[in-house]
Amino acid sequence: MISATSYFISLSRKKPMTTHNRAYQLAARPVGLPKHSDWDYVESTLPATADGQILVKVLYISLDPAMRGWMNEGKSYIPPVKIGEVMRAGAVGEVIESRNPKFKAGDHVSGSFGVQAYALSDGKDLHKIDPKLAPLPKYLNVLGMPGMTAYFGLLEVGQPKAGETVVVSAATGAVGQVVGQIAKIKGCRVVGIAGGPKKCVYAVNELCYDACIDYKAGPIYPALVEHCPKGVDIYFDNVGGDILDAVLARLALHARVVICGAISQYNNTGDVRGPKNYLSLLVNRARMQGIIVFDWADRYGEGVRDLAQWMQQGKLKSREDVVKGLKTFPDTLLKLFSGENFGKLAIEVDH
Amino acid sequence: MISATSYFISLSRKKPMTTHNRAYQLAARPVGLPKHSDWDYVESTLPATADGQILVKVLYISLDPAMRGWMNEGKSYIPPVKIGEVMRAGAVGEVIESRNPKFKAGDHVSGSFGVQAYALSDGKDLHKIDPKLAPLPKYLNVLGMPGMTAYFGLLEVGQPKAGETVVVSAATGAVGQVVGQIAKIKGCRVVGIAGGPKKCVYAVNELCYDACIDYKAGPIYPALVEHCPKGVDIYFDNVGGDILDAVLARLALHARVVICGAISQYNNTGDVRGPKNYLSLLVNRARMQGIIVFDWADRYGEGVRDLAQWMQQGKLKSREDVVKGLKTFPDTLLKLFSGENFGKLAIEVDH
Repeated sequence: MISATSYFISLSRKKPMTTHNRAYQLAARPVGLPKHSDWDYVESTLPATADGQILVKVLYISLDPAMRGWMNEGKSYIPPVKIGEVMRAGAVGEVIESRNPKFKAGDHVSGSFGVQAYALSDGKDLHKIDPKLAPLPKYLNVLGMPGMTAYFGLLEVGQPKAGETVVVSAATGAVGQVVGQIAKIKGCRVVGIAGGPKKCVYAVNELCYDACIDYKAGPIYPALVEHCPKGVDIYFDNVGGDILDAVLARLALHARVVICGAISQYNNTGDVRGPKNYLSLLVNRARMQGIIVFDWADRYGEGVRDLAQWMQQGKLKSREDVVKGLKTFPDTLLKLFSGENFGKLAIEVDH
Repeated sequence: MISATSYFISLSRKKPMTTHNRAYQLAARPVGLPKHSDWDYVESTLPATADGQILVKVLYISLDPAMRGWMNEGKSYIPPVKIGEVMRAGAVGEVIESRNPKFKAGDHVSGSFGVQAYALSDGKDLHKIDPKLAPLPKYLNVLGMPGMTAYFGLLEVGQPKAGETVVVSAATGAVGQVVGQIAKIKGCRVVGIAGGPKKCVYAVNELCYDACIDYKAGPIYPALVEHCPKGVDIYFDNVGGDILDAVLARLALHARVVICGAISQYNNTGDVRGPKNYLSLLVNRARMQGIIVFDWADRYGEGVRDLAQWMQQGKLKSREDVVKGLKTFPDTLLKLFSGENFGKLAIEVDH
């Protein structure tokens, strides 16, 4: 999407009216759920754009369960956010000043711009996006990281075959909604797990799942037995905890469990709850495998192409839960962990 | 190994001298470790051999961790042993009477003969074995189910590549000793985990592992850091519990965890301890997969061929811990769970 041959510098024609930036920095490593005191809201003067850099006006900020992991100290698949650093977040925005030949003012881009109103970038790991093709929040959702996670996690790690039963937790969330719909496109029986009747009705009526289990309504295992009479061939797990254990107990022979997340465990102050039914992997010769979307970066083009096509064909719906105002960030983030969000959670920055 | 074309009936030339059988039947489903009262020792008259049947004098009985699972009620990969049934066990023996054209008196066979001195069989799922090629107990060990489990579990599920680091628990046990030595043959760095200095010295000096960690001597994780400086590419797990958690915390990127057993958990009276570090599978894009040896039955010939060749080349050692006397069964079985056995545990039936 980035043309390296068109070389020009587009120093801003319209200087930003705002002379200051607003950002949330990590003030302390949270214990359990992130509190207001774990954040510093900082206003600062916009820095000058150096040679090679671009200045991006951030329009929509993605709020993702993975952010909770980035706040913890210690080695993971990506370094933790440092204390005093702007909180890491995916976002989309508009280039308003460019001293980088690959971008010009007016370009729309997605990248890891952080929880702030403006971001300086050297242009690395940025993608140009087309607001005419789809509304900007879709680029944080089905055409962004959640979509790529679902696409490669289900198709490459899960390897669904027509006729198989696919169960997905957080079934109307950013990743889950795409997983379930791709599984339907591939001819699978799809059973979602979500919290509350509103999400479950949506999953069946709008996303066309075969069934959706409301985990808040009662024990999950009997519902799995009812809706997965031949067992579970693929379980795409976003939540961990009790739900993971219930599905493990219902695996079919040679099942695949895709571990994408464990949101029920991210705010534990003690140990993560290990899946006590993991020996079902032995009994059923099944496998459990983790996915990190960045591993598939060189194939994102393939994912975007298929997902965009399915969207255009009306086979793939997606839903965003957009909250307006940067200053809502500490509270909006918590919606992920209470399950209060309905669809991909994002903040629309007020400019 | 069974020729279907040579049709003859070899009615016993030497009638068994013994006129009775001796057997251990399951009397009750054990809670925790199997107690003496969970068994009935039963003497009975030898039944007549019906058409198509053979009578086998059982010589060596295999004692395996999997037996503990077979005593529990409930669905597994194989039906549980019923109360009042002879306890299921792999064994080797000699055909002393045959009314089945595929066998003749004097043949040596391996099969699921149970914990008893004589067994009637219809000849299904039996393998003829050659006592001249290897001593009989080897057919319960490296040339039997443990050898097959190690061979297909490591090579097909683990998929080792030269230069990778392989960790194996119960490293001098029936399966573990074969896993570690095959991994060495395939050019891997091998780190065993075993209980006590005697087993660890044996693993390094006799089995030629690069290192062996004594789990009774202290915490395992620091030892894993020391001996697996580049992380663990393959973990072949026979034990579960704390050891599984420690190794999960040390996985390398794209690691494979082969779940073969969980002996530390088999006698739990409460829930199995789930691996609290399972999210290491996510962070490291690793997979955890179960193996049941029966799935590979149509390829046992391949396994026996390679293992026998490695034995002949002196590349594959194996050790048995043979206890004499059928009546030692209730106590001998417990050696598995205390880790007291050293090598493949078997009972030599006193005739």
